Amino acid sequence: MIKVAILGATGYTALELLKILARHPQSDVVALTTRQTRNPPVTEVHPSLTGLFDLPCEDLSHEEVGRRADIVFCALPHTASMDAVPQLLDSGCRVIDLSADYRLDDPGVYEKWYGHVHTDPTRLKSTVYGLPELFRDQIPDADLVANPGCYTSTSILGLAPLLAEGFIEPNGIIIDAKSGVSGAGRTPKQGTLYAECNESVTAYGIGNHRHTPEIEQILSVVSGVSVSVAFNPHLMPMDRGILCSMYPRVRTTASVDEMMAACREFYSGQPFVRVVEHIPATKHVAYTNYCDISVRMNRDQLVVFSATDNLIKGASGVAVQNLNLMLGLDQQTGLI
Amino acid sequence: MIKVAILGATGYTALELLKILARHPQSDVVALTTRQTRNPPVTEVHPSLTGLFDLPCEDLSHEEVGRRADIVFCALPHTASMDAVPQLLDSGCRVIDLSADYRLDDPGVYEKWYGHVHTDPTRLKSTVYGLPELFRDQIPDADLVANPGCYTSTSILGLAPLLAEGFIEPNGIIIDAKSGVSGAGRTPKQGTLYAECNESVTAYGIGNHRHTPEIEQILSVVSGVSVSVAFNPHLMPMDRGILCSMYPRVRTTASVDEMMAACREFYSGQPFVRVVEHIPATKHVAYTNYCDISVRMNRDQLVVFSATDNLIKGASGVAVQNLNLMLGLDQQTGLI
Amino acid sequence: MIKVAILGATGYTALELLKILARHPQSDVVALTTRQTRNPPVTEVHPSLTGLFDLPCEDLSHEEVGRRADIVFCALPHTASMDAVPQLLDSGCRVIDLSADYRLDDPGVYEKWYGHVHTDPTRLKSTVYGLPELFRDQIPDADLVANPGCYTSTSILGLAPLLAEGFIEPNGIIIDAKSGVSGAGRTPKQGTLYAECNESVTAYGIGNHRHTPEIEQILSVVSGVSVSVAFNPHLMPMDRGILCSMYPRVRTTASVDEMMAACREFYSGQPFVRVVEHIPATKHVAYTNYCDISVRMNRDQLVVFSATDNLIKGASGVAVQNLNLMLGLDQQTGLI
Amino acid sequence: MIKVAILGATGYTALELLKILARHPQSDVVALTTRQTRNPPVTEVHPSLTGLFDLPCEDLSHEEVGRRADIVFCALPHTASMDAVPQLLDSGCRVIDLSADYRLDDPGVYEKWYGHVHTDPTRLKSTVYGLPELFRDQIPDADLVANPGCYTSTSILGLAPLLAEGFIEPNGIIIDAKSGVSGAGRTPKQGTLYAECNESVTAYGIGNHRHTPEIEQILSVVSGVSVSVAFNPHLMPMDRGILCSMYPRVRTTASVDEMMAACREFYSGQPFVRVVEHIPATKHVAYTNYCDISVRMNRDQLVVFSATDNLIKGASGVAVQNLNLMLGLDQQTGLI
Repeated sequence: MIKVAILGATGYTALELLKILARHPQSDVVALTTRQTRNPPVTEVHPSLTGLFDLPCEDLSHEEVGRRADIVFCALPHTASMDAVPQLLDSGCRVIDLSADYRLDDPGVYEKWYGHVHTDPTRLKSTVYGLPELFRDQIPDADLVANPGCYTSTSILGLAPLLAEGFIEPNGIIIDAKSGVSGAGRTPKQGTLYAECNESVTAYGIGNHRHTPEIEQILSVVSGVSVSVAFNPHLMPMDRGILCSMYPRVRTTASVDEMMAACREFYSGQPFVRVVEHIPATKHVAYTNYCDISVRMNRDQLVVFSATDNLIKGASGVAVQNLNLMLGLDQQTGLI
Repeated sequence: MIKVAILGATGYTALELLKILARHPQSDVVALTTRQTRNPPVTEVHPSLTGLFDLPCEDLSHEEVGRRADIVFCALPHTASMDAVPQLLDSGCRVIDLSADYRLDDPGVYEKWYGHVHTDPTRLKSTVYGLPELFRDQIPDADLVANPGCYTSTSILGLAPLLAEGFIEPNGIIIDAKSGVSGAGRTPKQGTLYAECNESVTAYGIGNHRHTPEIEQILSVVSGVSVSVAFNPHLMPMDRGILCSMYPRVRTTASVDEMMAACREFYSGQPFVRVVEHIPATKHVAYTNYCDISVRMNRDQLVVFSATDNLIKGASGVAVQNLNLMLGLDQQTGLI
Repeated sequence: MIKVAILGATGYTALELLKILARHPQSDVVALTTRQTRNPPVTEVHPSLTGLFDLPCEDLSHEEVGRRADIVFCALPHTASMDAVPQLLDSGCRVIDLSADYRLDDPGVYEKWYGHVHTDPTRLKSTVYGLPELFRDQIPDADLVANPGCYTSTSILGLAPLLAEGFIEPNGIIIDAKSGVSGAGRTPKQGTLYAECNESVTAYGIGNHRHTPEIEQILSVVSGVSVSVAFNPHLMPMDRGILCSMYPRVRTTASVDEMMAACREFYSGQPFVRVVEHIPATKHVAYTNYCDISVRMNRDQLVVFSATDNLIKGASGVAVQNLNLMLGLDQQTGLI
Repeated sequence: MIKVAILGATGYTALELLKILARHPQSDVVALTTRQTRNPPVTEVHPSLTGLFDLPCEDLSHEEVGRRADIVFCALPHTASMDAVPQLLDSGCRVIDLSADYRLDDPGVYEKWYGHVHTDPTRLKSTVYGLPELFRDQIPDADLVANPGCYTSTSILGLAPLLAEGFIEPNGIIIDAKSGVSGAGRTPKQGTLYAECNESVTAYGIGNHRHTPEIEQILSVVSGVSVSVAFNPHLMPMDRGILCSMYPRVRTTASVDEMMAACREFYSGQPFVRVVEHIPATKHVAYTNYCDISVRMNRDQLVVFSATDNLIKGASGVAVQNLNLMLGLDQQTGLI
């Protein structure tokens, strides 16, 4: 049994991690952290975990976490994570970081989009990006894995095969992304109150959403050329799920069927990407680690659909998928 | 044109008041207040009012409000209201208070349930309770009207005819009340986040919800004997609407049809209570000032249903109904 | 008072028409039709209308409707409408047709997209398209007005100013449209069951949605050149509302501010289009006849947002706006 | 590996069964039936199962099902089930019947509430009622298990300990039950359309809901005296979940703490009932096989809360719990 800790245990990604780990046969959760100093039981913070876990959320030092755990899921906010990760690694833990702090290669890009100087810049280039469908070979030996953003992995998984095969232009790809509200986190804000979000659809962060450079960086790696996107996130009145409707320009005479075949080939042997004939729906992937992908032609315009559960394949599910690879287990352990 | 002000203009009840006043032919909104000192335009605070109102929310003194307005809707939190109301009345305004501060007759009861000493206790006994279906004659001449709570008026309107006619026992009436989330207000709290409330039904405030003494006080007035209730509020995953399913004990041989007839008679000439054959649904009254009522017998157990829109008939609609009565207008002005 | 009839009174558009007409001072509803032969009261079909209307839904001949009414709202399904309209016009009524039957100019286009031969083709060219913001001058004298589709008017209102001013390319405009479920009608289908749509976002009708030729026809009239769009409708887990996120290619050096100014100028004097600084949200226009529009630049990609309530500005509200123009009333009568 | 079949594979309970069986290590799904004769792949009927199952839904005879399977989940509508079950048993299968056909002991009661003569009456008395928390000892050797109704098991699990201990009166127990829409099934009906149910709370089936006699029968067995309930189901705008708020009359001087202790004792060793300090919420049990229970005193009125996921603990989860017991497996196999 591997000893696992979660830093930042009070949010939604930690909750989903714990639900998955409850059915994972090789992990033992040994520490949960919070900045609340009264050490609330995890079942008070997350009542749905009653009967599954019986430990407190504690205000632990990184050293103490390092003493207890073999692998740490770091679910801290950005900037808090780049403070914790070096200490955790120094204490001998391996780390799966769910924040944005280690996703970007370039500290200048990080500073531009996140508004903070990166305090651990030398580690950026060598950190493995934890999207197993693209970087599976690098994950087993990694000590630090940067878990992808939810919009990011959903967008990338839909576009990667088409870019890799040269079917679409690498610049100016329009992404119209639609997300459930859980993606906005558990901190109280007026904008994510029930009575504000329910019965409402709107856009936000047009031109400045932080997943933009992450999508571009990884797609540029995949395609070998510089990729640019116009990323347009929208908030949907639902708990969970992301649907990306993506509009790239075609540069091929290949048919939609040929593109679908190329997608199938690209994800051959990857259990969590399903290239489907129907149009993906968030409901079909909710509470699963699947990403559903399909391609359509609307007159002359190619449309690529990609759907995930933002908390599972978009966060905690892929984190456990990374854990499995780091432990040499079947990728699907605990995830079906 | 009557000059109208709203104190506490940033919340949901103020928004609904403004939507109704936009179609009200006799009112002119002259002042909106907030504690925000930068004087935001009301259309920034409530974008849905764009094109309907063009004035700022201001951090005004009660004296200034009194100078500008003839009638003030006070949509402040409890305790803030009992500070403002005396000053507003002194300045010559008439006041419709949407808080709980003037609903209860007894300052001791207020202190027990609200945890604060009442600072304007002498006015309590003489304040008119603004439920027009019961106290219509007292409202036209009132300078201060205490607008009822949302659960309160919904419960009372369903039970009043049956108590007045002696069909049901006055004690131990079980009220299972179901409310949409807008009733919890616009202040950010974890418990009213979308991702907490959506896809969830639960109860809260069992035994200590503050609408309890208000329901009992008014029903005791109606029936002439002391009434007690077990009030059980529940939170529903919807924006707006209250359904009260009420379980009194019967003390009559009258049939359900006779009780329905008595309800119809009781509300004869009252345009906003509809005694309906079908079971009321919140959707049928949403965005209206109606209260729908019906009575059923489930084996030996009487069931009384009552439904309103918590923000309209439960707050801002009945407030305008009171305004109309205070101005000598048709009750329905602006409310159809 | 103008005598008004509604053909096809059991659906959602008829319900919304009736809610609006209940507050319209110049109309008297004299006939409601259904194919149900038992003549159910309209309050049984639509319980929310209790107390507002007291007439049955009847299985009336078009002649009988013509005898009773001055103006008829035809809310029948397509193909049924082109059967009814000639008879209604012959009987001397004026008609506002909410179906698709008279929206397209070309019977061949109709046949291609709707799969039926048009049986009243000669009337197509002369029928006025009932979008007052574009064709206001033609509506007052029309005997037959084709009320626009919901996606259609939302898309057109956002794009028309930019096309008219030559700011954007007329071909290949990508429209990512997001609609609430009420747009799919009240006929029971598995695809619109609550448990299918809730917590789900998906696309449908990619490449074959029937609002495509309607959008193109009207935008071509506006711009004077042939316009083509890639229209991509999506279903959202909410009752009502449409948000169109539109991605045209820019062909100007004008700034976003200049485009916003042009939009304001274009809709000057039009009370129901609001050009807003914030990003439109369906909640801001729900239960209103407003269309909110805004323009953004996302890096090099122009994004045009347009939001309506699909049942009001997208159907029944604009129908009453047309009624008002046909009667020489203020456009806003009954619609604030 | 046990060979498993599901009769009636197109509905929601079958979908949930398949999701659970996908992670169940001891079962092999060998047959799925439908009345559709074109043999659609199960992944077309339920796209969310893509990658998990690869077999068709077939129009199979009961004999053929019997040849293929060891255990059959019968998810047919009532009356269809009592036709199928005898044939399945004759062919040597063991059966878990999810319909209502074998839940009631008395064919007269069945006929009264379901409106059909029972065609297999002799088997009723001997059929095991598949609520493991009450009848765990009878299930392992049963050939036929009647899986409980969703409202039924939720109500029973909350009340059983209090009745068994004599804390509450057995007659006139008021049950105010609140269910998500998935409980109404997947057959298209106007009443379960999204645009009808969303933003609406209402009651239905007052006095005639078919779960009434089932609740009374089982609670009478538990308590040893005749139990009567007033069962009041309500429809909530959510996919899944049941909350029962139950109002029995107390006949004890025991405190709430003592009642809670008695509940804990009663369910000692039962992994799927959680007696919790907080008020249960449907969200805490959604997508799980848990039933959460708690007891409160609201002045003099006892309130018992009980929450489940209607499709899991209320249907497919408890069906697999029964399967596990019938196979001699740990009850929790596949259910965490």
